Amino acid sequence: MTTMESIHKQPHHFGKAERARALGQKPCVVWLTGLSAAGKSSIAEELQARLFDRRLHCYLLDGDIVRTGLSRDLGYSDADRQEHIRRVGEIARLFVDAGLIVLVALISPFRAERRAVRALFEPGEFIEVFVDTPLPVCEQRDPKGLYRRARAGQVPLFTGIDSPYEVPEQAEVTLPAGEIGIDECVLRLVDFLQCRGNIPVRDEP
Amino acid sequence: MTTMESIHKQPHHFGKAERARALGQKPCVVWLTGLSAAGKSSIAEELQARLFDRRLHCYLLDGDIVRTGLSRDLGYSDADRQEHIRRVGEIARLFVDAGLIVLVALISPFRAERRAVRALFEPGEFIEVFVDTPLPVCEQRDPKGLYRRARAGQVPLFTGIDSPYEVPEQAEVTLPAGEIGIDECVLRLVDFLQCRGNIPVRDEP
Repeated sequence: MTTMESIHKQPHHFGKAERARALGQKPCVVWLTGLSAAGKSSIAEELQARLFDRRLHCYLLDGDIVRTGLSRDLGYSDADRQEHIRRVGEIARLFVDAGLIVLVALISPFRAERRAVRALFEPGEFIEVFVDTPLPVCEQRDPKGLYRRARAGQVPLFTGIDSPYEVPEQAEVTLPAGEIGIDECVLRLVDFLQCRGNIPVRDEP
Repeated sequence: MTTMESIHKQPHHFGKAERARALGQKPCVVWLTGLSAAGKSSIAEELQARLFDRRLHCYLLDGDIVRTGLSRDLGYSDADRQEHIRRVGEIARLFVDAGLIVLVALISPFRAERRAVRALFEPGEFIEVFVDTPLPVCEQRDPKGLYRRARAGQVPLFTGIDSPYEVPEQAEVTLPAGEIGIDECVLRLVDFLQCRGNIPVRDEP
């Protein structure tokens, strides 16, 4: 029988807390910000692999993939970049609600934008990670030749060249990724997540 | 040492398949379409509870919550509704990529829109569920008083009143939710997911 009562009953409430408990982790977003070629994606991929090996539930939200899907109606104007970052933040929020640890690798150069994303989350859920690789190192790496093209004036508003990167003032973690390797960066993040209680403590070999 | 090699190495590939295997389920989206007050959300909530009890990983993507977040820049014009459905589809795709079983309850009245969302997924991943409750039943329930207001001309373009609902032609599942109760609807969906191999088979008591 389908009555008004049966339509309206709230069978069980499944919130973030219940899902997190079932998954054995405290959901959060690890937001890696930094210059192009700073190493954000490589660190995120390696962290994902590490968490996956430990049977934790995480998802690397790839900005480029979102660009081809949800944000495919957006270009690269200031307003569109800002809207793209907002959307990635909103998606991350849904994933955190679903109980996952979300990894985001996105240049996200402006403080105001990162602050707006942080405001979507409960205190402690948003972990800002500054991948602090100096511009000369990034420019020397230049894996996609973007810096070269930007210097030649072919990529307007390129972060670090003719558009500023605003260094985080209160990043939860700063990784000097020009000096230490990716494995060391990942270890530091794992340590941080353990200390914060996002993932269970386990001594790594 | 952070070399170009270390930046570019692909440490491990974690795709949908690896995540699904680890979670013990085959990810998919269960897309419930039907009139307002047809029972879509109640069925989705109860299905979520059932899957959660079985320790499966699912997430109910609530259209109203997306409205207050990702789609908060959208109104209720035809174009905006269409964009909202597109965005929900794109988010569902990311969740499926993350290995989850996603439940969506959304009127989504037009065939073309549902077809466009289906096209985002691999064959078999998009499960269209028609919650087939006759309009008079929905209108009698009218939990939020929306039909009453629509009949009074206060809610323009209300589905079923002055905007059409296009009945699915090839829904994977049709639930006569005006005749059978929510529990029976959920049982049928669980059966379907078991038959399709999305969730492990288990005899229910």
